Amino acid sequence: MDNNRHDRIRAVQWQGDHLRLLDQRRLPSEESWIACREADQVTTAIRDLAVRGAPAIGIAAAWAVALAALREEPLAPALSRLRAARPTAVNLMWALDRMQRHIDAGANPAALLREAQAIQDEDLAANRRMGELGASLIAPGSGVLTHCNTGSLATAGFGTALGVIRAGTAAGRIDRVYAGETRPWQQGARLTMWELMQDGIAAQLIADSAAAHLMKSGVVQWVIVGADRIAANGDTANKIGTYQLAIAAKYHGVKFMVVAPSSTVDMATGTGEEIEIELRDSAELLGTGGVRTVVEGAQAWNPVFDIAPAELIDVIVTERGVIERPNSIAMQAMFGC
Amino acid sequence: MDNNRHDRIRAVQWQGDHLRLLDQRRLPSEESWIACREADQVTTAIRDLAVRGAPAIGIAAAWAVALAALREEPLAPALSRLRAARPTAVNLMWALDRMQRHIDAGANPAALLREAQAIQDEDLAANRRMGELGASLIAPGSGVLTHCNTGSLATAGFGTALGVIRAGTAAGRIDRVYAGETRPWQQGARLTMWELMQDGIAAQLIADSAAAHLMKSGVVQWVIVGADRIAANGDTANKIGTYQLAIAAKYHGVKFMVVAPSSTVDMATGTGEEIEIELRDSAELLGTGGVRTVVEGAQAWNPVFDIAPAELIDVIVTERGVIERPNSIAMQAMFGC
Repeated sequence: MDNNRHDRIRAVQWQGDHLRLLDQRRLPSEESWIACREADQVTTAIRDLAVRGAPAIGIAAAWAVALAALREEPLAPALSRLRAARPTAVNLMWALDRMQRHIDAGANPAALLREAQAIQDEDLAANRRMGELGASLIAPGSGVLTHCNTGSLATAGFGTALGVIRAGTAAGRIDRVYAGETRPWQQGARLTMWELMQDGIAAQLIADSAAAHLMKSGVVQWVIVGADRIAANGDTANKIGTYQLAIAAKYHGVKFMVVAPSSTVDMATGTGEEIEIELRDSAELLGTGGVRTVVEGAQAWNPVFDIAPAELIDVIVTERGVIERPNSIAMQAMFGC
Repeated sequence: MDNNRHDRIRAVQWQGDHLRLLDQRRLPSEESWIACREADQVTTAIRDLAVRGAPAIGIAAAWAVALAALREEPLAPALSRLRAARPTAVNLMWALDRMQRHIDAGANPAALLREAQAIQDEDLAANRRMGELGASLIAPGSGVLTHCNTGSLATAGFGTALGVIRAGTAAGRIDRVYAGETRPWQQGARLTMWELMQDGIAAQLIADSAAAHLMKSGVVQWVIVGADRIAANGDTANKIGTYQLAIAAKYHGVKFMVVAPSSTVDMATGTGEEIEIELRDSAELLGTGGVRTVVEGAQAWNPVFDIAPAELIDVIVTERGVIERPNSIAMQAMFGC
């Protein structure tokens, strides 16, 4: 498979003495980079969504810890601020826990830099593996719908759900790609469409609310999404709108695939009911691109994740393997201690 | 019921010698009016969405015919251009057919003006009646979710689905209102939130893709929407996203109500499969407020209506009465010739 043709973007780049982040808030109109020379600059970039996507957040945070060590900043408060930057993505906690274990074992800055590099390299390798595993499930000539951005921009590279789409396209299994715009931040519209165009994969944008009508028209056989946290029973937290897609997919007999590295699996969380859903500022819904679109004084409810219950998920793909019809037993068998 | 407290907006106003239309493209930032002194100005306003909402389109078109007669314009081409302005809304065809019958019977301009006024007055009366009928089905203390704008802006006044919400709020049956933003035109965000604030009804805006998560949280008992066309079996064409809401409502045991005047019922259309779905310019998805948000060269699929099948609809409310669990037999009994 010539995957490289479809994989040219790297949004999180270590530059020897600082971290370089592609500012995803400015895409697609501008390719602007943020040079982070202190851990708190990374914290700010995570909180303000300059870097987003659960795996990319974890990788950036790992580099931030190494950066703090290199600069001889106090590590405990730096980690604590990083941990608080985004509550839902478990990869952030996973990466920070992993760095913390090395700190506890007395790792020097060079060792922490090696660990951050390892986290990044492993993520890329996991994505390529998931791409193969996921693509192998898709019948040739299929159409797929994805949500949010789960690509190179959201990971070390290649992507999770978008990695399956890259691999499936390269293998000739996928020949139609649809992307939901993903209100309110428009990650699908702004980022996924940009990324797919950069990498030469033809795609069509749809309004999020057009997904069921698209499924009814028969042109998509799979919905493929990423995850921000997967509970021990397979319930999956992901970008708001994922739940609605899972319900509509079930109604139409369209298959539903979740693609995420095993670092996204949180066996300490029993079910989706226990997952904290991040509520963000209503201002994100009340205007677009800095322009107020809703009457002054209006209120909005802005949850940015929801939970697709395991019973609506046909398959969870991680780098460790594929779980069909996920439930607690199958999850325990693959991810239990 | 003190409905007047919640009903102060009139978007289509005959001014004795011209038609005054509230330009809905400029709301909520600006209350700007278009003075139409020729029928083709109304045609343009309908095509370009300055006036929108199936009943309001029909009323504006009726006034346009009267205006053409008053100005001694040739009537046949004016009607033909009006008819082509929007394909999905059956009310447009219904109103034009009604005006055509009067033209065929030799009506003079004064008689055509009276007929347009009658169409407008009957729509307002129908909306008040539907408001009562619909509200009576809602248990006190309920929460509701609506989509698009179906209010005074979309009708002669009071509204269809929003009329039920007005009446239900006045009667103390509804105490929580949620409105989906309704991409891509944002009628929910721009128009419904504005209209509800004008009329003193508290509401919260949600992203369209947050609807299923909202239903799961248990705060809404009804989804209440309007219609652009109702087929002879009860299948309902309405704003894109309606179908997805109907599927999610069924999944959660939330009731689904369609509210529309009988002029929206098209007994000549057997099922939803026969209804033409308007596809609009992909540019509507590729930018917001004139600002390009998606990479140059990207493609989009932009259907602006979809079909909620009758089996997902709990009740259809028209001014003639309520049909529970709609099907061909019940529809024929109420709307058959």
